[in-house]
Amino acid sequence: MTQPVAGPGRPALSATARTRHERLREQGRTDRAHLIAVLRAGLIAHLGVVVDGTPMVIPTSYGFDDDTLYLHGSVASRSLAARPAETAQACVTITLVDGLVLARSVFEHAVNYRSAMIYGTPRLVTDPAEKLRGLHLLSEHLAPGQWDYARQPSRKELAATSLLALPLDEASVKVRTGPPDDADSPDAALGLWAGELPLISTWGEPVPDAELPAGTAVPPHITARAGTRAFDGDS
Amino acid sequence: MTQPVAGPGRPALSATARTRHERLREQGRTDRAHLIAVLRAGLIAHLGVVVDGTPMVIPTSYGFDDDTLYLHGSVASRSLAARPAETAQACVTITLVDGLVLARSVFEHAVNYRSAMIYGTPRLVTDPAEKLRGLHLLSEHLAPGQWDYARQPSRKELAATSLLALPLDEASVKVRTGPPDDADSPDAALGLWAGELPLISTWGEPVPDAELPAGTAVPPHITARAGTRAFDGDS
Repeated sequence: MTQPVAGPGRPALSATARTRHERLREQGRTDRAHLIAVLRAGLIAHLGVVVDGTPMVIPTSYGFDDDTLYLHGSVASRSLAARPAETAQACVTITLVDGLVLARSVFEHAVNYRSAMIYGTPRLVTDPAEKLRGLHLLSEHLAPGQWDYARQPSRKELAATSLLALPLDEASVKVRTGPPDDADSPDAALGLWAGELPLISTWGEPVPDAELPAGTAVPPHITARAGTRAFDGDS
Repeated sequence: MTQPVAGPGRPALSATARTRHERLREQGRTDRAHLIAVLRAGLIAHLGVVVDGTPMVIPTSYGFDDDTLYLHGSVASRSLAARPAETAQACVTITLVDGLVLARSVFEHAVNYRSAMIYGTPRLVTDPAEKLRGLHLLSEHLAPGQWDYARQPSRKELAATSLLALPLDEASVKVRTGPPDDADSPDAALGLWAGELPLISTWGEPVPDAELPAGTAVPPHITARAGTRAFDGDS
């Protein structure tokens, strides 16, 4: 196994039985910086919890700092509150699709992607200061600039919001890039085209709410995002 | 509760306890056509299974017909084979992000999305004819035209491929579209801009494998996809 590489002052990603890369090892990443890069690039997470003995996979928005992933979690929070034993464990997966890998054989077709799976026991955030901080991180990750531009949450709204915290301690990151793997196979003699079909996601032009008074200006932080690439990790 | 609407000759989506829309009911869709539309528009699914008592959320490609979702499932298949009781149930979620909902208050910020959650007991496909058919559906969903263009799977490759089948019987579909919900709230008086920031995903220009012989032509079915919208349900 490749030894995990610790970031400055940060522990390495763990290599527990469930995060060890058993399959397609060449796609595994053990540097914490790769985890942060996927979190930075992503927009929504898929949160897996066990409810009444069966898995439930819930799409949700998230934010993060160096140590903690914060998740908007109404459904999962209620499960957590109602059935602590069953929902003790969670798996959060964030996946970015970068394109299709079109090979010479159907068997070698693949997807170019970046993916992070984070395991742990989510904690319902109850401390008002941490909740405000977590929501700030979440809001700024989703819609940078809006926390200071829009009206910030009232005490009542904070109370009505469920936030989950998951430590960024146990995670698995996988990345696939590049062309198909069958250039050196006998299939190369078939003379077929092979390569990649990139998937490009871009923020469009802002669409004003039809109820806005005429002449309401689009703020610069929104205008600036239009036309930029999403999922590239720079936002 | 809204009554489910059955498609022609097809049963309606079930409204079991776990697929009933308890939250944000206005976003629920009960027509089977909406499920098929999300499946058609999506590219990858997040498959949730329980392994050693903890949830695991695995990104994977899929295909489908009117009755069955087929999933590429190496990790999940091994779990299924090794621990039938634990992995009996699965939840598969397919989510498409269409844009951000930028409201007048942080609290009303949201994501415009389409999402399908399918619950059921996955079956490992062992019949060679069904496996070939399922892989055909999966391949053509991911990379239309490639099944006939590229070399089709050999008997050995078929044996090396794990395919899961999940009945399309119990599902929940949610959709959010349109502007923020706070146009009628006191926050409208703040005079802030509000609206949507669309997220647009497009297939890029094909990137040839550097190992290809010079002059290998890009086949028309790939050229035709470049520049078209992904996740719009027409592919």
